[in-house]
Formats: sequence, C-alpha cells, structure tokens
Amino acid sequence: MILNRAWLLARRPEGAVQASDFAYREEAFDAPALQEGDILVRTRIISCAPTIRNWLNPPERSYRGAIGIGDPIRGMAAVEILASRHARFEAGQWATAVAPWQDYAVLRPDEAAVPITPIAAGMDPVDAMTLYSPNSLTAYFGLFAVGEPKPGMTVLVSGAAGSVGAMACQMARIAGCRVIAVAGGPDKCRWLKEEGGADMAIDYRSANLPAALKEASPKGIDIFFDNVGGDILQAAVDRMAPHGRILLCGQLAAYDSNIPAAGPRDMMKLVYGRIRMQGFVVGDYADDYASAIASIRQWEAEGRLRNRYDLRDGFDRIPDAFVDIFNGRNAGTLIVRI
Amino acid sequence: MILNRAWLLARRPEGAVQASDFAYREEAFDAPALQEGDILVRTRIISCAPTIRNWLNPPERSYRGAIGIGDPIRGMAAVEILASRHARFEAGQWATAVAPWQDYAVLRPDEAAVPITPIAAGMDPVDAMTLYSPNSLTAYFGLFAVGEPKPGMTVLVSGAAGSVGAMACQMARIAGCRVIAVAGGPDKCRWLKEEGGADMAIDYRSANLPAALKEASPKGIDIFFDNVGGDILQAAVDRMAPHGRILLCGQLAAYDSNIPAAGPRDMMKLVYGRIRMQGFVVGDYADDYASAIASIRQWEAEGRLRNRYDLRDGFDRIPDAFVDIFNGRNAGTLIVRI
Repeated sequence: MILNRAWLLARRPEGAVQASDFAYREEAFDAPALQEGDILVRTRIISCAPTIRNWLNPPERSYRGAIGIGDPIRGMAAVEILASRHARFEAGQWATAVAPWQDYAVLRPDEAAVPITPIAAGMDPVDAMTLYSPNSLTAYFGLFAVGEPKPGMTVLVSGAAGSVGAMACQMARIAGCRVIAVAGGPDKCRWLKEEGGADMAIDYRSANLPAALKEASPKGIDIFFDNVGGDILQAAVDRMAPHGRILLCGQLAAYDSNIPAAGPRDMMKLVYGRIRMQGFVVGDYADDYASAIASIRQWEAEGRLRNRYDLRDGFDRIPDAFVDIFNGRNAGTLIVRI
Repeated sequence: MILNRAWLLARRPEGAVQASDFAYREEAFDAPALQEGDILVRTRIISCAPTIRNWLNPPERSYRGAIGIGDPIRGMAAVEILASRHARFEAGQWATAVAPWQDYAVLRPDEAAVPITPIAAGMDPVDAMTLYSPNSLTAYFGLFAVGEPKPGMTVLVSGAAGSVGAMACQMARIAGCRVIAVAGGPDKCRWLKEEGGADMAIDYRSANLPAALKEASPKGIDIFFDNVGGDILQAAVDRMAPHGRILLCGQLAAYDSNIPAAGPRDMMKLVYGRIRMQGFVVGDYADDYASAIASIRQWEAEGRLRNRYDLRDGFDRIPDAFVDIFNGRNAGTLIVRI
C-alpha cells in the first residue's frame, strides 16, 4: 500500500509558530482519475518560506488565502509530474509549483494563482528551488527594477543571511554598491562578510543598531532592501540619504506575531528626505524571469554569486524546519527533501 | 520715527500652538548700511504655512532650522525691495522670499536656503502668494511629477480645502481623474464639490472615514495626495488599489503635537498592494517652475482652476491667523497683508 503523508494545520498559531501547530496525517493513496487539465504530482522538495506564516492566520489577518484548520499546509515546492491531462505538462517532467505539504496531489495549472513552471531539463531541482527560485528573483527584481542601484551607492539589506537577503547582498555588490548587511548572530555575519557580498555586517542581536548604522553609513543609505521591518525599518529611515529608496519585500519581524507590521514612527522624515518606500511582489515581473535567470546563471558561473541553502531530508522534519526560519536557525534558503 | 514691528517666538508651543506663544515687539527702525550682496526689504504679505509650526519645535524635533526663543518667526512672504546691493535685485521690485514676520529686514539672496524670486511685473503679489505660490507648485509637482495621474484614475486628497489641497483637487480633475476630497466641515465640503474640482467630499469630522472611503472608492484609490497623515493615511492605505501611489506632502495632523507623525499600522498592505509611498519637496523641481506657472496661468484663464485664499489685513492679526490654520478656520491659502 502506498501512503500519502501530509502536514495539516492543527490550530492557528498565537504569536510564535510552533511545531505542535501542525498535525501529521497519513492515508492510503489511490491514484485518482484525472480530469482534463489536471496533473498528478509527487512533491519532492518543499521550501520553508516565511510568507507561509501569514496564511496560517485567520482569514481576516491573512493577506492571501488563509489555510483552513485541518487542511494541508501549502507552499512553493519542486514536484515530479506522475501523470498529466494538461497539454503543456507531461509525466516525468519536474516543475515548481505551490503544492500541499504531502506526497501526492492533483494540481490544476490553469487555475493556479502562482504559475506552475517546468524545471528546464538538466537543471538540478535543488538549484531551481534556491539559486533560480522566486526568492532569488525577488532579490533581483526588488533590487534592480525597484531600487535602481548605481555604482557607489550604499545599500542596506535586512534579513541578509536569509534566502532573499543573501541574494540581495550579492547582487548589490555586483551592481557596484557598498553593502551593509544586518543579520542575527556572528556566524551569519561572518559568512556575509567573507562570502555573501557584504562590506559590513551588523549583528542586530548584539549591536546598538542605530549607532552601528550611523557608523556604517556616514553618507546615509541610498537603498534599503527590507525583509524584516520593525525596529530595523525605523533605524534605517533615520539614516536614509536624500531621495533614498526603501524596498518593502517583507516584514519578517511581524509575521510571527498577532500585531501587524507597523510603519515608521515619523513620516515627516520621508517627506523631508524625499524618500520613496515601495512594496513589490515578484509575480509582477514574470515576463522578465528568463533574462533574470540568465543573469543569475552567468554570475554564478563567473563565481560572483554563491548559492547558499540549508537542505534537510525527511518529511517528518518539515514542521521543525519551518519553525527554525523564525528563530533564525537557517543558513540561507531552507528546503526539505521528502 | 519709523517703527519696525515684529512677532517673536515667546515660548515653544507644547501641543496645540496658541497666539500667546508669540510675542510682539516694536523698535525704532534706522535703515542699516547694506553690505555687498544685501537687500533691504519691506514685508508686505506673509503666508501662514503649516510647515512653520515645525520650526517652532526645539532643534531636536525640528526638521530644518528651529527658530530660537526671542527670534522673529519667519516664513514665505511677498516683500518690496527698498534698497539693494545685489546685482540681480533693484529697489522697487517685489519678490517672494522666506522673511521674518517684521516690517523691515535685510536679506542676503546668495545665502538664502529658499530662492528669493522676483515677482514678474504686472503680477498681483496676492496671486504670487496664492495661485502661483510654492503651495500651488507643491500641488502641481506632487500630482504630476510624483503621482503620474491618468484619466479615469481615482485620486484622494486630504486637507483638501487647504492651500495645497484645493489646488491638488482641481489639478486632478483637470488631469481627468475622479476626485475624492477629505476636509473638515460642511462649508469646505460644499465648496469642494461646487467649485473645488471634487466629485465627492467627505467631512472627516462627521463621517466614519473608513466606511465613507469604501463607499467612495469601489475600485480603490489610485493616488492619495496626503497633506494630513494619521488616521486618514491609515484609512487610505486600507483602500489603495494595487500599484497605487501615496504622495507624502505633509502630515498636518501631527504638526501641532509633540508626537511625530506615525506611519501606517500595517506595512504588509504596502507589500502585497505594491504601493509606492513617496515624500517630495517642491524645491527639487525649481528648474520646471516656469512651465508649471504657465500651465496654472492658462488653466485659470480658461476658468478650469479657481484661486481660493483667505486674505486678512493687519500685522496684529498674524498670530491668530496662524493658529486658525490648525483649527481649520481658514478658507484656502491664508495670507496676511501687513
């Protein structure tokens, strides 16, 4: 008998998410009859993305599609297509898709909110989930399309050792900018300075952040790539150079809380500083993914961009891995092979 | 004997500014010997601009040059040049300048933070202080250079009956947009609908703002021209259409307070909505003032733009006039002829 294992939402987390908020289920798996337009997939690698935390909130506090109690958690995954009744997909292909945290699932590509994208033949699915993933593309389009970096600019990146942040730091370095990274803990800071493209790294756990930022940015910050929000956002606003840009990628500081991510305490600093603060979502740039991936591929081949991920094995380890993101116990993109 | 009257800062306002925060002084006036580069001016019309409120704060809470206790208040004024030792200015000319609230003063154009600009021969100085003033230009450049309006868009303007707001509403209408105005009191709302370019006007004192905004913007708000901040900013963030722009012109709600102007309560709404929030300062667009003034002049001649100002007479009325701005007791740009 083939089993279909799943991780379900057992209860809505109050405050910090815990592994016990998830429930394990296994059921006998009988391959279903596919409808026209369906594909049957086997989930192979799942990505523990912070944004999933928001979908665990009740609908009134979720920005997009809250997950129901008792329903499988879903998130970005690399899937193997086992059977297809969709013209653009065939059995044996791999693809990236938002899929449930379970072994087998039926997906309908034409109704997917996030496009299901075949993984090119010859591309390692781990690379597809890390180096060429939506996280990397988020760093790319946030920095280049929204931030408009120029050589010599000072770029600050929060959550810099995370999946998006580590790419943003390295890409800002490639753009000729001076890069200040903010991350939690000496190991992450060391990696950022030695390999991650950062000129300076500030450990927010031990540093006085406003003082450290002041010292690190004598002429102010031109671009702030913000993955975290909260106190880091406030400290950055106080150091922005005139006409600076704040790229609002995420607000990790608030995901694991019942309190929304508040904005800066003093908007007049944005007025007088002519600061632009801009939210963005990677899906808006889908038409340009191919050229972004080509650039990333070339930079990696030239040794200018390093992939960094935290690969774990085992279906049973998913909840602990997910909780680790919020405790900062991941080293780059956290993926679980199942 | 000629007197030089002045209004000085008697004490720093705590909370709401009061007329008693200002002190009157008069001194005998002896025309001083001018240095090379000086001009001697007689102040003729002063503009009660909300931004002056910030300069009354102690230096650590002032964005630009706090006014010292016992020093004259300064602000935008129309001045008559009585004598000049500056090559670009001559006696008899009028100009707009940041000048002290006193009859006579010596200014140094080459050191002025805000350019001293001659008023064109034939232009009524009242028009120079209202229709063609930095306030009008603020509305113009905020809306057109930052907001990028397109026909059919929905534009929300806060502080809509004020000096900048009334111009912003009318210019948004000229740009082909649907205009929602927010102002305090039925008289202002009536004026906005009948003459001020607004399709709808919401009286924030009597309306439930979130509900009224929801009803007024079924497809969301594309551009929010924000002069006020605070609760209105929050309510607007909740109604922004995807890719909407929030133009941060001022934060009137917080000027008269010891508490800075806080940002939105939930930054994730900016992320998911791809909202751009941008501070701007009119002085950045000085190279384009002439063409902006030409457009304003033409719109006025065509009857598409109405000047609206609240002209008061008398040096002794300046403090009360200034306080009236914060109580909403002005009808358009508040100027005092002295």
